[in-house]
Amino acid sequence: LGYIRGVNKPENIKRLPGFRDFAPQELAVRARTFDAWRAAAQSFGFQEYDGPPLEPVDLYTRKSGDEIVGQLYDFVDKGERHVALRPEMTPSLARILAQKSRALPKPIRWFSMPQLFRYERQQRGRLREHFQWNVDIVGEAGIGADAEVLAVALEGLRLLGLTERDVEARVSDRPLLRAILMALGIPEATHDAVFQVIDKLERAGPEWARERLSGAGIGPAGADELLGLISDAGPEDLAQRFRANDAVIERLDITRDYLERLRSLGFAAWVSFDLTIVRGLAYYTGTVFEIFDRARDLRALCGGGRYDRLLELVGGDPLPAVGFGMGDVVLGELLEERGLVPEWTPAVDAFIVLPDADLRSRGLEVAAALRRGGNSVLYAFSEDGVRRQFKTASASGARFAVVVGPDEVARGQILIRDMGTGDEYNHDLTNILNGTARLGSA
Amino acid sequence: LGYIRGVNKPENIKRLPGFRDFAPQELAVRARTFDAWRAAAQSFGFQEYDGPPLEPVDLYTRKSGDEIVGQLYDFVDKGERHVALRPEMTPSLARILAQKSRALPKPIRWFSMPQLFRYERQQRGRLREHFQWNVDIVGEAGIGADAEVLAVALEGLRLLGLTERDVEARVSDRPLLRAILMALGIPEATHDAVFQVIDKLERAGPEWARERLSGAGIGPAGADELLGLISDAGPEDLAQRFRANDAVIERLDITRDYLERLRSLGFAAWVSFDLTIVRGLAYYTGTVFEIFDRARDLRALCGGGRYDRLLELVGGDPLPAVGFGMGDVVLGELLEERGLVPEWTPAVDAFIVLPDADLRSRGLEVAAALRRGGNSVLYAFSEDGVRRQFKTASASGARFAVVVGPDEVARGQILIRDMGTGDEYNHDLTNILNGTARLGSA
Repeated sequence: LGYIRGVNKPENIKRLPGFRDFAPQELAVRARTFDAWRAAAQSFGFQEYDGPPLEPVDLYTRKSGDEIVGQLYDFVDKGERHVALRPEMTPSLARILAQKSRALPKPIRWFSMPQLFRYERQQRGRLREHFQWNVDIVGEAGIGADAEVLAVALEGLRLLGLTERDVEARVSDRPLLRAILMALGIPEATHDAVFQVIDKLERAGPEWARERLSGAGIGPAGADELLGLISDAGPEDLAQRFRANDAVIERLDITRDYLERLRSLGFAAWVSFDLTIVRGLAYYTGTVFEIFDRARDLRALCGGGRYDRLLELVGGDPLPAVGFGMGDVVLGELLEERGLVPEWTPAVDAFIVLPDADLRSRGLEVAAALRRGGNSVLYAFSEDGVRRQFKTASASGARFAVVVGPDEVARGQILIRDMGTGDEYNHDLTNILNGTARLGSA
Repeated sequence: LGYIRGVNKPENIKRLPGFRDFAPQELAVRARTFDAWRAAAQSFGFQEYDGPPLEPVDLYTRKSGDEIVGQLYDFVDKGERHVALRPEMTPSLARILAQKSRALPKPIRWFSMPQLFRYERQQRGRLREHFQWNVDIVGEAGIGADAEVLAVALEGLRLLGLTERDVEARVSDRPLLRAILMALGIPEATHDAVFQVIDKLERAGPEWARERLSGAGIGPAGADELLGLISDAGPEDLAQRFRANDAVIERLDITRDYLERLRSLGFAAWVSFDLTIVRGLAYYTGTVFEIFDRARDLRALCGGGRYDRLLELVGGDPLPAVGFGMGDVVLGELLEERGLVPEWTPAVDAFIVLPDADLRSRGLEVAAALRRGGNSVLYAFSEDGVRRQFKTASASGARFAVVVGPDEVARGQILIRDMGTGDEYNHDLTNILNGTARLGSA
């Protein structure tokens, strides 16, 4: 315990690279995002859950894509357990539901807002943590759940002030893409390779894609046809082109139902059909989507889709599921860019001004009563003069100064000044102390 | 990616020992606690902040007590940094303020609700994480800040339904205790040893304490006098006993001011003066307090006090500070015991009943409009019969069933049934879609 006394002025200890502090100004931005996410999820009837930030590493190596496993923030704990700071939430959800899902009415509609972690080497400036809104419907195989999940993601963005002019949800359907590949004569054994090419198409370009498709046994004509279809064809074009193919038509009907439901839910203008959206992770089995800023300046804001085989991988009952994750970092960049981050200024409802230190007890009683009435209330701890107290009240962003002075108290009153308008009026002290008076009404 | 296909039914992956899952039922309890903590802090004008869950281990080894350092959940990360999952919040606060405090108006009133971690070996059943409400006033040396901080802790408990019959705040003052020790002729070099004895007095008993005090050079008569004073004497007794000792009287005046302020803030019946409260951690420099359940069945709910030397230890300006931490686990046990954890039942505002699948688009439009009006709204994804849909509505806890049926829609209306009373009434469909109608009013 001696280091308390022996130290004079040690050097600063710095926070770890890739982690953020949230001083009140930054926390207010985060809280606004969390509030919008929570309000959107709750308006759609989702219930909030959470899991531990630390999980057995097996939970991720068993099912996640290579990218996530390569960036695990993992270590061996003091009990010789190989553990990881959670890199995504869905495995924890699957683990919890593996124990609980039988007792729950279906569909299960759960959401969470966990902090997630990754460890990349030698990537300066990139964050190692972010908060991610996770929303899932489990136990419903119908396309209605897919539409509901994308709609809630868009509702969360809408509540933050974004519109269809700011963002675009690009939606695809993996079974539809598979059916199209089959219809084009591309054998099933080649599909995974083709998926990987399409996944990188936007970044790597058509020349690169043709080359890679050629390596997978798809010649120039076939590659052109495929790339043309997935880049340009809408559902109606595909219905026309593949009208004789039952598998394609069946899946197209589901896609049209999906798009129609999104239209009814108010998001027609936000959604584009786009077969180039694949999602790298292996576990998707149906619809997939990503939400981007319209200007395409930023990485994806959100990604999700249907993953009907995931729960059984961690030991649960096989249950169909659809969900998404939306991080706070790219979203924060877009909100900032669009001027949708309100300026933060400290604010309280009232500041108690005490002209006479002898009345301090009375002043504190007034503070306590106003607080119990739902107001945020400050007062000066030191015995400043009245002018100084009014300055402090103003600097703290108080809407009202509440003067508990000897003249007023002698009359059984207090004086309230509206700090915005300068209006002053008296309030009955007893009513204030009883909590039956409201600030801002004479 | 092959493990997606090869696996049939693997064994369950279990969560790590000492960690909790929060399914919606448990999360609702946690959220209620967080809401009370946040509401109390905000009513006192505190601003929320947060820091990273992972920090350099130096941040804790430099200032924390032995107990916390011995239980660190620490490891070496992939970049060879020695890091720890945060065991307490105050060091992160000090680190953040070391950079920011100069630019902030004083006093700084910040609160946080971090998840904290510890690693104890071979302690079955004990948690390795909990959430802790941290509230601090930094930059104010006066006793008013001490009173404010204890009052906000008690206000948080009050908002959760607890009263002075359930809990007791035991308050002491380290400088007062030191002044008393000096007045009793106990030399300063012995004070730390005496503090350690008093800290363990309640658990280890007076016999043990006498023996340990004897080892510190305090004979039986001196030990009896000391133990008698700290166990029984109130401020008035001490003022009488030490009326000739300026150092004791000066500190007693501050203690009386502290108690008087707590009385004015409405917490007289919650607070007891108790010199046996020491707080093991080394960094307290003034008042200290702990909050216990009255029955003393549980560990302390909350502990805090003044720590005027802490900030400079992590490289910041020397700033006086006072604060506390209150965990969610012991508090949860007390709330449970007192019957103050409300039963959780799922609830939504409305369930859309669709008698005719052809009207699904219209039904989804109604759902979207009601959601944007602030209601939580569900509907069936599958094409169930009406009776089945009403059952699902009831099971989901819906307050209203909203029937979008062909007859009603033909008349430009929808039917709303109050699921509690069975009352039914019609609403104008256009008003609903415009968001100008409110559920529950005809």
